Amino acid sequence: MSEASNVVKSDIEIAQNAELEPIGKIASKLGLEDTDWEPYGRYKAKVSVDTLNKLKNKPDGKVILVTSINPTPAGEGKSTVTVGLGQALNKIGKNAVIALREPSLGPTMGLKGGAAGGGYAQVVPMEDINLHFTGDFHAITTAHNALAAFLDNHIQQGNPLAIDPRRIVWKRVLDLNDRALRHVIIGLGGKTNGVPREDGFDITVASEIMAILCLSKDLNDLKTRLSNMLIAYNYEGRPVFVRDLKVEGALTLLLKDAIHPNLVQTLENTPAFVHGGPFANIAHGCNSVLATKLGAKLGDYLVTEAGFGADLGAEKFLDITTRAGHFKPSVVVIVATIRALKMHGGLTKEELKHEDIDALARGMENLSCHIETIKSFGLPYVVAINHFIFDTDREVAYLKDWCAANGHPVALSKVWEQGGEGGTELAALVVDTIAHKENLFKPIYELSDSVEDKIQKVVTKVYGGNGIEFSSKAQKQLKSIQQNGWDKFPVCIAKTQYSLSDDPKLIGRPKDFTIHIRELKVSAGAGFIVVMTGSVLTMPGLPKHPAALNMDVDDRGKAIGLF
Amino acid sequence: MSEASNVVKSDIEIAQNAELEPIGKIASKLGLEDTDWEPYGRYKAKVSVDTLNKLKNKPDGKVILVTSINPTPAGEGKSTVTVGLGQALNKIGKNAVIALREPSLGPTMGLKGGAAGGGYAQVVPMEDINLHFTGDFHAITTAHNALAAFLDNHIQQGNPLAIDPRRIVWKRVLDLNDRALRHVIIGLGGKTNGVPREDGFDITVASEIMAILCLSKDLNDLKTRLSNMLIAYNYEGRPVFVRDLKVEGALTLLLKDAIHPNLVQTLENTPAFVHGGPFANIAHGCNSVLATKLGAKLGDYLVTEAGFGADLGAEKFLDITTRAGHFKPSVVVIVATIRALKMHGGLTKEELKHEDIDALARGMENLSCHIETIKSFGLPYVVAINHFIFDTDREVAYLKDWCAANGHPVALSKVWEQGGEGGTELAALVVDTIAHKENLFKPIYELSDSVEDKIQKVVTKVYGGNGIEFSSKAQKQLKSIQQNGWDKFPVCIAKTQYSLSDDPKLIGRPKDFTIHIRELKVSAGAGFIVVMTGSVLTMPGLPKHPAALNMDVDDRGKAIGLF
Repeated sequence: MSEASNVVKSDIEIAQNAELEPIGKIASKLGLEDTDWEPYGRYKAKVSVDTLNKLKNKPDGKVILVTSINPTPAGEGKSTVTVGLGQALNKIGKNAVIALREPSLGPTMGLKGGAAGGGYAQVVPMEDINLHFTGDFHAITTAHNALAAFLDNHIQQGNPLAIDPRRIVWKRVLDLNDRALRHVIIGLGGKTNGVPREDGFDITVASEIMAILCLSKDLNDLKTRLSNMLIAYNYEGRPVFVRDLKVEGALTLLLKDAIHPNLVQTLENTPAFVHGGPFANIAHGCNSVLATKLGAKLGDYLVTEAGFGADLGAEKFLDITTRAGHFKPSVVVIVATIRALKMHGGLTKEELKHEDIDALARGMENLSCHIETIKSFGLPYVVAINHFIFDTDREVAYLKDWCAANGHPVALSKVWEQGGEGGTELAALVVDTIAHKENLFKPIYELSDSVEDKIQKVVTKVYGGNGIEFSSKAQKQLKSIQQNGWDKFPVCIAKTQYSLSDDPKLIGRPKDFTIHIRELKVSAGAGFIVVMTGSVLTMPGLPKHPAALNMDVDDRGKAIGLF
Repeated sequence: MSEASNVVKSDIEIAQNAELEPIGKIASKLGLEDTDWEPYGRYKAKVSVDTLNKLKNKPDGKVILVTSINPTPAGEGKSTVTVGLGQALNKIGKNAVIALREPSLGPTMGLKGGAAGGGYAQVVPMEDINLHFTGDFHAITTAHNALAAFLDNHIQQGNPLAIDPRRIVWKRVLDLNDRALRHVIIGLGGKTNGVPREDGFDITVASEIMAILCLSKDLNDLKTRLSNMLIAYNYEGRPVFVRDLKVEGALTLLLKDAIHPNLVQTLENTPAFVHGGPFANIAHGCNSVLATKLGAKLGDYLVTEAGFGADLGAEKFLDITTRAGHFKPSVVVIVATIRALKMHGGLTKEELKHEDIDALARGMENLSCHIETIKSFGLPYVVAINHFIFDTDREVAYLKDWCAANGHPVALSKVWEQGGEGGTELAALVVDTIAHKENLFKPIYELSDSVEDKIQKVVTKVYGGNGIEFSSKAQKQLKSIQQNGWDKFPVCIAKTQYSLSDDPKLIGRPKDFTIHIRELKVSAGAGFIVVMTGSVLTMPGLPKHPAALNMDVDDRGKAIGLF
């Protein structure tokens, strides 16, 4: 995290010096009984999904969604604010629980070095969370690739379903950044070694199984969704599903532990569920519905986070996730940093060190748009300024004045530097907003809308664009979606996270743009239509100097080089 | 297991009805303190490798190695006898611990449906052990593929080490049976998607990292071995190692939890370490040295198992594993079944139901050879007849008489049917043999022997063959091995498990045969030379009807279809 540039203690140092409570104590504080959870080491647990059933008559806590402006290279610290807000709510005497996505090993070994909050607002044990954790991602990788193996084996063993090897839509996955696996040919080497065909690997977070795990309400729902996954077309052009291969039972078996939400704690011992982690472009980008619902049952406030900016993560949370989970958010926290707003105002990363009110003023448009989005959903909101040490008093004052002038509730967050203590103003504002502001939550579109109308509504009401344009390929796919009755699914738009438009260079608040729809893809198990705009990378590459080069283990077995 | 054909309860039914003790109780019985281990669920734990250091002044228990005749389709039940013998030793009042390999998901989903003993001699929780367990294999898969990604990224980013993409010897792995991935082309799709080259996937148990994890004596040794792995040659023909990429730290970090042995229990609450699982052909085929040493520190008797027959598993245990672990076995148990011996005597699987003393008599030659092998190593031994319900009294009597006439200690094992109670005769014989028979253990060859001499000694003294013949490819590789100073490593001969020769059809005890050496491969990190005879499949395929088709989860989350 760029925040770490001029302070003494690194995230991993802070995390390794934390005084953790045994996970059983965290579970007890939540009112869980010993039979509700299983330990994974001393500081991690899986809480059984059956607990939700047991608590079904208990009223739900308030769900607080944390989102942000469009990300910039300056960093927004959305996870840090999410964790810090949870800590701060506890500080002001509220019973709060946090729900976050699990980090992916690919980016951790590649660029990011970890993702579990930052500074004094982290979930711990951060080394475990950033590495194999409780094995959920490995289970998903295994189930995904087992399905691919069953599919290729079906073809090899005579292909009774007449699967067309040129029309297989199920790829393979690894939880790594590995560009060399994006496009491969498999099945070479002669008769006993499979049928040659084109294939490719995505990163595990892009697996439909990841999305399914995060949208399922129980083990049966998981199995049903798995059985509905579209994997190929046969020679007659008809879709082939997992249920046709009869392997949904085996896949569910491989996921039977992964479905239980993982319980950890923050540096200040606030309970946190860290569970699931789908992409926020080709998937819906938030932690499991089960973790959110369980957290809301166990806490009076549940703080969760959606991926990327509000145009991607929050939109999907509000149009897809809340529908799958049958719950309603109580408030949305929109995170912005002065640095990032200045970048939206046209500055380069190098120019950020100097005060620049004009650039900040120009950048406010990006924040404006996301605020309007949340209003379109009928939800109360709060702007959270994630404070950086370089921010000047005049810049902070400008931002606060701008919010006041426009009637936006705003609070400064210093949780990275101070932990929960630095977020009490924000926490109080959030509690107050939930208590006093009207909540008229409604998704942006109806499921009964046509696919085109759904996309059009998101483009107009969320992105602030005008038209939509389908490629001829997408038009064809649209027809097939209608013919197969998939057009009643919500849409999951995969778009660059850097711009409200589909052009990553258009920062700030672009106007009068058209969204170009390159391709449609149905995730029939997850239950959404992926709308691809521009090119979306589903398997990242490694940089010239991967973060892994700095990683090691010391003589006592402690991790080095995660941050 | 074929043993289950005419009884009421399946392995999984027996396992699911077992009365397990909390793993903390098992740990306490072993004298472990709470800080020595971490729970993984209620019935699994990882015991810290540091415990070995703490106990270094405690005398070691006796190591009992369980091996078998050459496997046949009839099944030998070596794991079952291993688990049952541990249980039986406890029944007769001894403090015994078991050490086993972890099952691989590939064969579990493919043919076998599981591998954790059988009947009333199983390690539990069998569903966990057969599925993701504590994530060790997933960690190995991840470390292995991360290294492959770092390697391809090095080439993509300018290739400063001048790695020749045609001479990369590091493949990728998955813990699945997936024949379509045996031979692939990666790096397609243009400039940003890697450098095109031939590649392939092995099953995770074939990874050199698996072998290394199982031979390492601590975390530092693990890192050193990882850094020494040979991954490619450069354009000048010089070897490139992991240390040249500087990623041994990151790989060690990914394995920092996997190195700790996993503690579980048997159906009768006997402590069992289940840790690691390398192939017994291209690798050394037994559980981790750390698990064996830890078990021997904590118990007075440690029962462990080596893969396949004594020609493969036991030979490698005695020539490779004991050297890496600096320990000495006390006795070898050679498992045979009357059914398998009859198959070595020429019967088909269908003909096994009928009593056939002549076939049995002919088959004894196979057992004879393995007994002689163990004698060549200077070790005391016991023959264990793993009793099947079809065995007739006359057949059992013949086998016992044959052993008596030839001076071989023998005992009947009924542990599959009766648990520990059915193995007390065997247990008593094992204890007695350790106490009273001379142990002159010595590996078959010296490390200072030439590579050819090492192979020749194994072929003559273990396989009972005559000559060895190097392909021209192998001759070239031998030169390179000598030039690089790798010729002082032990040899790890990859040969069919079905025959003492390199021809799987030559059952019984073939004579006057030559072993054909197709290829040599150095595992410079694990520290052995893999000698390939015939073709060895390092990525299994799935059968027409994979075991996975019968797998499922019931409404209460319980596994179905593992056996």
